Amino acid sequence: MKKIINDPKHVVDESVAGFGLAHADLVRVETDPIYVVRADAPVSGKVGLVSGGGSGHEPLHAGYVGHGMLDAAVPGAVFTSPTPDPILAATKAVDGGKGVLHIVKNYTGDVLNFETAADLAAADGIEVRAVVTNDDVAVKDSLYTAGRRGVGGTVLVEKIAGAAAERGDSLEQVADIAERVNANARSMGMALTPCIVPHAGEPSFTLADDEIEIGIGIHGEPGRERIKIEPADAIVDRLITPVIEDLPYSDGDRVLLFVNGMGGTPQIELYIAYRRAADVLAERGVTVERSLVGNYITSLEMQGFSITLLKLDDEMVELWDAPVHTAALRWGR
Amino acid sequence: MKKIINDPKHVVDESVAGFGLAHADLVRVETDPIYVVRADAPVSGKVGLVSGGGSGHEPLHAGYVGHGMLDAAVPGAVFTSPTPDPILAATKAVDGGKGVLHIVKNYTGDVLNFETAADLAAADGIEVRAVVTNDDVAVKDSLYTAGRRGVGGTVLVEKIAGAAAERGDSLEQVADIAERVNANARSMGMALTPCIVPHAGEPSFTLADDEIEIGIGIHGEPGRERIKIEPADAIVDRLITPVIEDLPYSDGDRVLLFVNGMGGTPQIELYIAYRRAADVLAERGVTVERSLVGNYITSLEMQGFSITLLKLDDEMVELWDAPVHTAALRWGR
Repeated sequence: MKKIINDPKHVVDESVAGFGLAHADLVRVETDPIYVVRADAPVSGKVGLVSGGGSGHEPLHAGYVGHGMLDAAVPGAVFTSPTPDPILAATKAVDGGKGVLHIVKNYTGDVLNFETAADLAAADGIEVRAVVTNDDVAVKDSLYTAGRRGVGGTVLVEKIAGAAAERGDSLEQVADIAERVNANARSMGMALTPCIVPHAGEPSFTLADDEIEIGIGIHGEPGRERIKIEPADAIVDRLITPVIEDLPYSDGDRVLLFVNGMGGTPQIELYIAYRRAADVLAERGVTVERSLVGNYITSLEMQGFSITLLKLDDEMVELWDAPVHTAALRWGR
Repeated sequence: MKKIINDPKHVVDESVAGFGLAHADLVRVETDPIYVVRADAPVSGKVGLVSGGGSGHEPLHAGYVGHGMLDAAVPGAVFTSPTPDPILAATKAVDGGKGVLHIVKNYTGDVLNFETAADLAAADGIEVRAVVTNDDVAVKDSLYTAGRRGVGGTVLVEKIAGAAAERGDSLEQVADIAERVNANARSMGMALTPCIVPHAGEPSFTLADDEIEIGIGIHGEPGRERIKIEPADAIVDRLITPVIEDLPYSDGDRVLLFVNGMGGTPQIELYIAYRRAADVLAERGVTVERSLVGNYITSLEMQGFSITLLKLDDEMVELWDAPVHTAALRWGR
């Protein structure tokens, strides 16, 4: 295992400390228990947004803490849910009197720990709602999940619900739009290579030199099938066809097209994939109104990519375009 | 070789086409010859900025085309300089009557081809100045270079000179500040793994499972030494010490600290490196006033990172903070 780390036991706390130093204008880092919170939290009169989950998916979630997106992010150990304790602490830290929304990817540990934290917060008089993202069409009921997994759609939920909170929406309104984004988002991913969790020291799965996995999860969980490597366009078709046909996205729909790198994929390849995805959508009469291309929800150094589509309406476009100022997404200010 | 590509011969044109589709609000892509240009080029009364070089370093350079940074980027084949023809075409396309600055990384092919294009542009009545970046302290005279190589400092030159051009500076003023940034920037990088050029199909070098290369070039050119893998903090010290001592950066200096991923390094590792780099600078009394962390000048899927320091003055800070709207760097609008 070759990594830029010191002690595998300190990967998360050292990385979060570095993140806090690099982005001290945006966030502060709490260490006992560990979470990342907006520098100006709590924002009085604004719904607070908290997300979190296992580390190793950066910039998700700490990279999205700031104006117009999350109020706090709670990192667990690599690929391991945070416990209720830091989730509760983050929830309290961002409560500006208007309630707190938890944005939770649908993995069993995350769902349970966020639920426990929400119950404890409610006992302290904080109103909490939760949205559980489950946009991955690849598989139902997998290694860490009952139902579908939450993947790329989570980034879009965080941006759009974050903008709704920033404009002053109520907790119910913010939760409703978060649910609407999740309901209109679908994703599927693939891997060329596995990744190595630092404290494990070995890949959690292996792929032959000419083999790829279609429908991979963001922790390397099994997908739909292993096949021989194919040209990029054929791989894109294998991902985007089930995505399109699931919701479905149809002639006349407007979408956000999100091509996401798994962490180790060069950008030059992501744009080759984007080109084919845009062509497929054009052939089907689906209009790409907004795009996002890059490493936004990753699996450490895994090579591969995912495609997420979000069916847009006018309000979602307005909220997508609204100013955001975080380490990983920034525009309009 | 497992990559998300179709035909290795079409990696660059397909990727640039995808880039153009994803960022049609920012750029247009010309295909014969190939270059990427601001959608609103030429901007009348503004100095035009053109950069370029071999592909495989994305988001450099096309990711920096837009308001407040480059007017055009000229991509060559992977790790291969573009010929004078597209550089000339790009230069003509961005000439708004105030002259054009070429920003050229110091590799023999790039320097020659940009010089030839500048001569041809001059024959057409366009005033051209060039700044050649050479911030890499690792080696002098290497595989593709006489003198020092241009690496991470190039991104900073493009941002700061781009802001100077946007505020209306003359060609001489923009060239002067570009030279000043280059003169105050120093970098050094390392690799954990090599990368594979698509049309080669094999890594250009190999590293043992426990071996890293200190001072690596962005095309995998040899660095200073190969050593056994060490903890992150020790690796950071091996990079930042020669960087600091070269200019040198001293007690009381203000700097921009840029920790750059080589393409395949997870973000969690970059922030571990950032943390140590910030600590070393603090110990030496150097103040980090601005930061940049992420994949900004890469070597395909290579795992590794580089550290760049830029000694700041008030004008550089003002220009760094000025609005920029490109695919890869965006703030203030």
